[in-house]
Amino acid sequence: MTNIFSNIPSEIPNEIFEDILNTNNLRIERIVSKGQSSPDTGWYDQNENEWVIVLSGYGEIEFINGDKVMLKQGDYLDIKAHVKHKVIATSTEEPTVWLALFY
Amino acid sequence: MTNIFSNIPSEIPNEIFEDILNTNNLRIERIVSKGQSSPDTGWYDQNENEWVIVLSGYGEIEFINGDKVMLKQGDYLDIKAHVKHKVIATSTEEPTVWLALFY
Repeated sequence: MTNIFSNIPSEIPNEIFEDILNTNNLRIERIVSKGQSSPDTGWYDQNENEWVIVLSGYGEIEFINGDKVMLKQGDYLDIKAHVKHKVIATSTEEPTVWLALFY
Repeated sequence: MTNIFSNIPSEIPNEIFEDILNTNNLRIERIVSKGQSSPDTGWYDQNENEWVIVLSGYGEIEFINGDKVMLKQGDYLDIKAHVKHKVIATSTEEPTVWLALFY
Protein backbone atom coordinates (compact mmCIF):
# COMPACT_ATOMS: atom_id res chain seq x y z
CA MET A 1 0.00 0.00 0.00
CA THR A 2 1.21 3.48 -0.83
CA ASN A 3 -0.27 6.91 -0.29
CA ILE A 4 -0.69 9.24 -3.24
CA PHE A 5 0.21 12.22 -1.04
CA SER A 6 3.43 10.70 0.30
CA ASN A 7 6.95 11.67 -0.73
CA ILE A 8 6.10 15.18 -1.86
CA PRO A 9 9.18 17.35 -1.41
CA SER A 10 8.78 20.73 0.29
CA GLU A 11 10.37 22.49 -2.69
CA ILE A 12 9.09 21.68 -6.17
CA PRO A 13 11.25 23.66 -8.61
CA ASN A 14 10.16 21.39 -11.48
CA GLU A 15 7.04 19.31 -11.96
CA ILE A 16 7.43 15.72 -10.82
CA PHE A 17 6.19 12.91 -13.08
CA GLU A 18 6.14 9.39 -11.63
CA ASP A 19 4.71 6.18 -13.00
CA ILE A 20 2.60 4.34 -10.45
CA LEU A 21 1.66 1.51 -12.78
CA ASN A 22 2.77 0.74 -16.30
CA THR A 23 1.15 -2.07 -18.25
CA ASN A 24 0.40 -2.66 -21.92
CA ASN A 25 -3.07 -1.20 -21.64
CA LEU A 26 -2.79 1.35 -18.87
CA ARG A 27 -0.27 3.72 -17.40
CA ILE A 28 -1.02 5.49 -14.13
CA GLU A 29 1.04 8.57 -13.43
CA ARG A 30 1.26 10.91 -10.46
CA ILE A 31 2.10 14.48 -11.37
CA VAL A 32 2.98 17.01 -8.69
CA SER A 33 3.00 20.70 -9.64
CA LYS A 34 3.48 23.88 -7.67
CA GLY A 35 2.96 26.98 -9.72
CA GLN A 36 4.24 25.44 -12.96
CA SER A 37 2.43 25.56 -16.26
CA SER A 38 3.14 23.94 -19.62
CA PRO A 39 5.93 25.52 -21.67
CA ASP A 40 4.64 28.53 -23.62
CA THR A 41 5.92 27.01 -26.80
CA GLY A 42 3.83 23.93 -26.96
CA TRP A 43 0.66 21.97 -26.58
CA TYR A 44 0.36 18.43 -25.30
CA ASP A 45 -0.58 16.33 -28.34
CA GLN A 46 -0.81 12.82 -26.97
CA ASN A 47 -1.13 9.48 -28.71
CA GLU A 48 -3.07 8.05 -25.78
CA ASN A 49 -6.32 9.05 -24.14
CA GLU A 50 -5.86 10.64 -20.72
CA TRP A 51 -8.28 10.54 -17.83
CA VAL A 52 -7.11 12.94 -15.15
CA ILE A 53 -8.30 13.90 -11.66
CA VAL A 54 -6.95 16.58 -9.33
CA LEU A 55 -6.51 15.27 -5.78
CA SER A 56 -5.13 18.38 -4.12
CA GLY A 57 -4.50 22.00 -5.14
CA TYR A 58 -5.85 23.09 -8.48
CA GLY A 59 -4.88 23.27 -12.11
CA GLU A 60 -6.30 25.14 -15.07
CA ILE A 61 -6.23 23.51 -18.49
CA GLU A 62 -6.64 25.30 -21.80
CA PHE A 63 -7.68 23.53 -24.98
CA ILE A 64 -6.60 24.57 -28.43
CA ASN A 65 -10.17 25.71 -29.21
CA GLY A 66 -9.85 28.28 -26.41
CA ASP A 67 -11.88 26.43 -23.77
CA LYS A 68 -10.47 26.68 -20.27
CA VAL A 69 -11.29 24.31 -17.46
CA MET A 70 -10.37 24.85 -13.82
CA LEU A 71 -9.90 21.56 -11.97
CA LYS A 72 -10.12 21.64 -8.18
CA GLN A 73 -9.96 18.79 -5.69
CA GLY A 74 -11.96 15.83 -7.00
CA ASP A 75 -12.59 17.28 -10.46
CA TYR A 76 -11.87 14.93 -13.33
CA LEU A 77 -11.72 15.17 -17.08
CA ASP A 78 -11.32 12.77 -19.99
CA ILE A 79 -9.00 14.11 -22.68
CA LYS A 80 -9.06 12.09 -25.85
CA ALA A 81 -5.87 11.38 -27.80
CA HIS A 82 -4.66 14.28 -29.94
CA VAL A 83 -6.95 16.83 -28.32
CA LYS A 84 -4.33 19.51 -27.86
CA HIS A 85 -4.21 21.07 -24.42
CA LYS A 86 -1.88 22.68 -21.93
CA VAL A 87 -1.78 23.55 -18.26
CA ILE A 88 -1.97 27.30 -17.88
CA ALA A 89 -1.85 27.55 -14.08
CA THR A 90 -1.40 25.47 -10.94
CA SER A 91 -1.63 26.44 -7.29
CA THR A 92 1.33 28.33 -5.90
CA GLU A 93 0.05 27.82 -2.33
CA GLU A 94 0.12 24.06 -2.11
CA PRO A 95 1.21 21.13 -4.26
CA THR A 96 -1.26 20.14 -6.96
CA VAL A 97 -1.45 16.35 -7.13
CA TRP A 98 -2.80 14.99 -10.41
CA LEU A 99 -3.63 11.35 -10.97
CA ALA A 100 -3.44 10.73 -14.72
CA LEU A 101 -4.45 7.53 -16.48
CA PHE A 102 -3.18 7.01 -20.00
CA TYR A 103 -5.14 4.36 -21.82
CA MET B 1 -15.82 18.13 -16.01
CA THR B 2 -17.31 16.24 -13.11
CA ASN B 3 -16.39 16.02 -9.43
CA ILE B 4 -15.79 12.62 -7.88
CA PHE B 5 -17.43 13.79 -4.64
CA SER B 6 -20.61 15.07 -6.31
CA ASN B 7 -23.98 13.36 -6.24
CA ILE B 8 -23.43 11.45 -3.02
CA PRO B 9 -26.80 10.90 -1.36
CA SER B 10 -27.12 11.66 2.35
CA GLU B 11 -28.40 8.14 3.03
CA ILE B 12 -26.46 5.20 1.59
CA PRO B 13 -28.39 2.05 2.51
CA ASN B 14 -26.57 0.08 -0.18
CA GLU B 15 -23.17 0.57 -1.75
CA ILE B 16 -23.28 2.59 -4.96
CA PHE B 17 -21.31 1.36 -7.97
CA GLU B 18 -21.06 3.69 -10.97
CA ASP B 19 -19.01 3.45 -14.14
CA ILE B 20 -17.15 6.66 -14.90
CA LEU B 21 -15.48 5.31 -18.02
CA ASN B 22 -15.86 2.02 -19.82
CA THR B 23 -13.59 1.13 -22.71
CA ASN B 24 -12.14 -2.11 -24.04
CA ASN B 25 -8.99 -1.81 -21.97
CA LEU B 26 -10.08 0.11 -18.92
CA ARG B 27 -13.07 0.56 -16.72
CA ILE B 28 -13.13 3.30 -14.10
CA GLU B 29 -15.66 2.86 -11.33
CA ARG B 30 -16.67 5.04 -8.41
CA ILE B 31 -17.80 3.10 -5.37
CA VAL B 32 -19.46 4.85 -2.44
CA SER B 33 -19.80 2.95 0.82
CA LYS B 34 -21.00 3.89 4.28
CA GLY B 35 -20.56 1.15 6.81
CA GLN B 36 -21.05 -1.66 4.33
CA SER B 37 -18.74 -4.63 3.93
CA SER B 38 -18.65 -7.49 1.43
CA PRO B 39 -21.21 -10.24 1.96
CA ASP B 40 -20.01 -12.73 4.57
CA THR B 41 -20.54 -15.52 2.14
CA GLY B 42 -18.08 -14.56 -0.49
CA TRP B 43 -14.80 -13.25 -1.75
CA TYR B 44 -14.27 -11.05 -4.76
CA ASP B 45 -12.56 -13.27 -7.34
CA GLN B 46 -12.11 -10.98 -10.32
CA ASN B 47 -11.06 -11.70 -13.88
CA GLU B 48 -9.49 -8.26 -14.18
CA ASN B 49 -6.72 -6.52 -12.27
CA GLU B 50 -7.96 -3.77 -10.00
CA TRP B 51 -6.07 -0.66 -8.95
CA VAL B 52 -7.97 1.09 -6.21
CA ILE B 53 -7.53 4.32 -4.23
CA VAL B 54 -9.60 5.64 -1.33
CA LEU B 55 -10.45 9.33 -1.77
CA SER B 56 -12.49 9.88 1.38
CA GLY B 57 -13.40 7.86 4.46
CA TYR B 58 -11.64 4.54 4.92
CA GLY B 59 -12.00 0.91 4.01
CA GLU B 60 -10.37 -2.23 5.31
CA ILE B 61 -9.64 -5.05 2.89
CA GLU B 62 -8.92 -8.65 3.85
CA PHE B 63 -7.13 -11.06 1.56
CA ILE B 64 -7.71 -14.80 1.52
CA ASN B 65 -4.25 -15.37 3.02
CA GLY B 66 -5.37 -13.44 6.10
CA ASP B 67 -3.60 -10.17 5.34
CA LYS B 68 -5.60 -7.08 6.20
CA VAL B 69 -4.96 -3.64 4.76
CA MET B 70 -6.55 -0.43 6.02
CA LEU B 71 -6.92 2.16 3.27
CA LYS B 72 -7.34 5.77 4.31
CA GLN B 73 -7.56 8.91 2.19
CA GLY B 74 -5.01 8.71 -0.61
CA ASP B 75 -3.97 5.10 0.02
CA TYR B 76 -3.89 2.91 -3.05
CA LEU B 77 -3.42 -0.75 -3.78
CA ASP B 78 -3.02 -2.92 -6.86
CA ILE B 79 -5.01 -6.15 -6.64
CA LYS B 80 -4.13 -8.63 -9.34
CA ALA B 81 -6.85 -10.70 -11.02
CA HIS B 82 -8.04 -13.69 -9.01
CA VAL B 83 -6.40 -12.53 -5.79
CA LYS B 84 -9.38 -13.17 -3.55
CA HIS B 85 -10.29 -10.33 -1.25
CA LYS B 86 -13.19 -8.70 0.52
CA VAL B 87 -14.01 -5.45 2.22
CA ILE B 88 -14.39 -6.06 5.95
CA ALA B 89 -15.19 -2.52 7.09
CA THR B 90 -15.89 0.98 5.80
CA SER B 91 -16.41 4.22 7.68
CA THR B 92 -19.80 4.66 9.32
CA GLU B 93 -19.09 8.37 9.95
CA GLU B 94 -18.69 9.59 6.38
CA PRO B 95 -19.00 8.19 2.87
CA THR B 96 -16.03 6.21 1.69
CA VAL B 97 -15.31 7.09 -1.93
CA TRP B 98 -13.25 4.49 -3.81
CA LEU B 99 -11.88 5.06 -7.29
CA ALA B 100 -11.36 1.64 -8.83
CA LEU B 101 -9.65 0.95 -12.15
CA PHE B 102 -10.23 -2.44 -13.75
CA TYR B 103 -7.65 -3.21 -16.39
